[in-house]
Amino acid sequence: MHLVIAYFLVVQVNSDYLKLKAGYLFPEISRRIKTFLTENPDSKLIRLGIGDVTEPLPKACREAMKNAIDEMGTNEGFHGYGPEQGYNWLREVISASDYQKRGCDITAEEIFISDGSKCDSSNILDILGHRNRIAVTDPVYPVYVDSNVMTGRTGEAQDSGRYEGLTYLAIDETNGFEAQIPKEKVDLIYLCFPNNPTGAVVTKSQLAAWVEYANQNDALILFDAAYESFIQDDSLPHSIYEIDGAKECAIEFRSFSKNAGFTGTRCAFTVIPKTLKGKSDNGIEVDLWSLWNRRQSTKFNGVSYVVQKGAEAVYTLDGQSQVKALISFYMANAKIIRHELSTIGLKVYGGENAPYVWIKVPDGNDSWEFFDYLLKKANVVGTPGSGFGSAGEGYFRLSAFNSRENVEKAMERIKTL
Amino acid sequence: MHLVIAYFLVVQVNSDYLKLKAGYLFPEISRRIKTFLTENPDSKLIRLGIGDVTEPLPKACREAMKNAIDEMGTNEGFHGYGPEQGYNWLREVISASDYQKRGCDITAEEIFISDGSKCDSSNILDILGHRNRIAVTDPVYPVYVDSNVMTGRTGEAQDSGRYEGLTYLAIDETNGFEAQIPKEKVDLIYLCFPNNPTGAVVTKSQLAAWVEYANQNDALILFDAAYESFIQDDSLPHSIYEIDGAKECAIEFRSFSKNAGFTGTRCAFTVIPKTLKGKSDNGIEVDLWSLWNRRQSTKFNGVSYVVQKGAEAVYTLDGQSQVKALISFYMANAKIIRHELSTIGLKVYGGENAPYVWIKVPDGNDSWEFFDYLLKKANVVGTPGSGFGSAGEGYFRLSAFNSRENVEKAMERIKTL
Repeated sequence: MHLVIAYFLVVQVNSDYLKLKAGYLFPEISRRIKTFLTENPDSKLIRLGIGDVTEPLPKACREAMKNAIDEMGTNEGFHGYGPEQGYNWLREVISASDYQKRGCDITAEEIFISDGSKCDSSNILDILGHRNRIAVTDPVYPVYVDSNVMTGRTGEAQDSGRYEGLTYLAIDETNGFEAQIPKEKVDLIYLCFPNNPTGAVVTKSQLAAWVEYANQNDALILFDAAYESFIQDDSLPHSIYEIDGAKECAIEFRSFSKNAGFTGTRCAFTVIPKTLKGKSDNGIEVDLWSLWNRRQSTKFNGVSYVVQKGAEAVYTLDGQSQVKALISFYMANAKIIRHELSTIGLKVYGGENAPYVWIKVPDGNDSWEFFDYLLKKANVVGTPGSGFGSAGEGYFRLSAFNSRENVEKAMERIKTL
Repeated sequence: MHLVIAYFLVVQVNSDYLKLKAGYLFPEISRRIKTFLTENPDSKLIRLGIGDVTEPLPKACREAMKNAIDEMGTNEGFHGYGPEQGYNWLREVISASDYQKRGCDITAEEIFISDGSKCDSSNILDILGHRNRIAVTDPVYPVYVDSNVMTGRTGEAQDSGRYEGLTYLAIDETNGFEAQIPKEKVDLIYLCFPNNPTGAVVTKSQLAAWVEYANQNDALILFDAAYESFIQDDSLPHSIYEIDGAKECAIEFRSFSKNAGFTGTRCAFTVIPKTLKGKSDNGIEVDLWSLWNRRQSTKFNGVSYVVQKGAEAVYTLDGQSQVKALISFYMANAKIIRHELSTIGLKVYGGENAPYVWIKVPDGNDSWEFFDYLLKKANVVGTPGSGFGSAGEGYFRLSAFNSRENVEKAMERIKTL
């Protein structure tokens, strides 16, 4: 329908996107699976790769959502634009249940409801300057790194896959999968515990050392607690605000994705204490809460009313028992994976307070070799550790998110290799 | 519970946020309403200010959403992470119904489902460079301007409220509310038709002139068509892709907020034709589709499955007739507002193909004086035109989004002043 136009757009693009490495982890996995399935169309793959839940949405959430839809069908109960920060009834119940109950003095106002931790943990850079020195662990959830690359906070990618300008903190066998506090000063630190991808945890004393470092070095910790509900050991912290001083140095990301099965329903939240301060280029002290509030008000329109009602139901008695049952189910899967793989002599980490089991690849093979081996010989899909960073080379991640039958079948297949 | 800490964070913040004018439009309106209600607790305010819908969510959407929730309650029907770009069944029906049917060659793949046009129209800057010259209309939807300020694409605010570095294109009585094509070269142009806030429309020939300008000047048009469903005049374009050459120079934003009453349900979409090109700093040609696809994959996790099912239902026979009824209802409100205000001698614009009526403030008063006058004397809330830009001074916006009873009552009160 349109003319042949002789002109071409030369609007200037964000060149930082071109620094991103083309071979992104999950597309590469998809490509290999596709090739395998083309050659072996009848094979029954079991996917323990991506960290996506598989069990039904809790009944309490479904009922609350259906009630909310009925409300939306009436003039009196219709809800148009909600607060960009989330409805207060949801923020209040989160404050009370997830924080005050654990002795963390986080108020409803400090909680911002969002449609996902992936969004929040990348959007948070909007309110921060470009001259902060940034530290990430290695291996790491790729979004932390990529969002920094895309916003011009790094140099080019090196052959190792690491980007110039970032500080990488290895977490591996040599340090017991405990991120080591950097010797130099950094300004922003991404921490994720229970850890994706290693399943490692942080103790209260380890986390206290991070908070002390941050406060002494005027640094900000971006603490991703998306997997806190999988913690089985009562001594471990669920929130960084269980540590004294964290309200002066930490933002926390939480999600309903993994505890209540909201990966396809979309609801999460971010905690920005009002006590957090930063400085502008000309030295003016600014509180981060106000900046994030302005960011969300301008660039976001809040989460669906129906979805927020579903999230609220997570905190009812029924909701809590249903969520606990989900967690127990997945953690029993993790236990099976750990047990069966240990039995055949594999070294396994994680999976005790996290839905991920981190496996040392046997026989000196690399992560992708092990991926191909499991795919072809056992028809089991996992995630190569090297996809999460160069220190992940030689490791492999299996997720506990699948049916019991599939997990047992996958272990059976691996054991008989 | 926490220690007194002697240190304060000095992480560097994004200083561009400090350029934002403190007196943002809608908070200022809220403040004045609050003051008024404190002094006059018994007054029955009628709100025709913010552009938020008031009628129930269409039945077809509600039923589809409830069915989707039932699916989510089963192992077989459970949906975890969806595609970040949206489900293909929704992209396909949008492509067929909103584009192919109108002769626009937009494919499903070129449509990205999102949780809102506000998000998309501000996030789009993520993929664009910092050296583009940017044009906005005046008056304008404030998000276009603020998102540029917040990402460092402007200088400081001037006394007029305008920001240094932006090109402002006045739309007012003197040019028949038609945005004038700039004489100088600009790289990015925000256009919104039917227009928020003026209710003005663009004809095909006017839009063709913009497309010609953009293609001749290697510029990119960001076309906001959130109000297209309110068009009553069949000769007006609903999409910029009805214009030859637009696929080489325009991105289009669409939303379910205003047609299907999704302001609290959250679903929208953005069209990025694969033919759109930009250039990197070192002159490499890059297609914008790939950049946006990468942006969404990394920083977004898709829209709730349940919500996308609701949006899909908009395109069913029932959905279409229910949406048409909603539009007719609001447009009848607009007609009443236009008619009644004209009767008492006010000059009114818009409201014929848009849910907004743009009123010339009488007696040489300014926008805020008229706001206060209507608030205090008629207990009717509107929006001061000056809040949308300095060229909006002397105008006032009333929205057609309210019950018939309230609209009639508001007009009655204004007429008897």
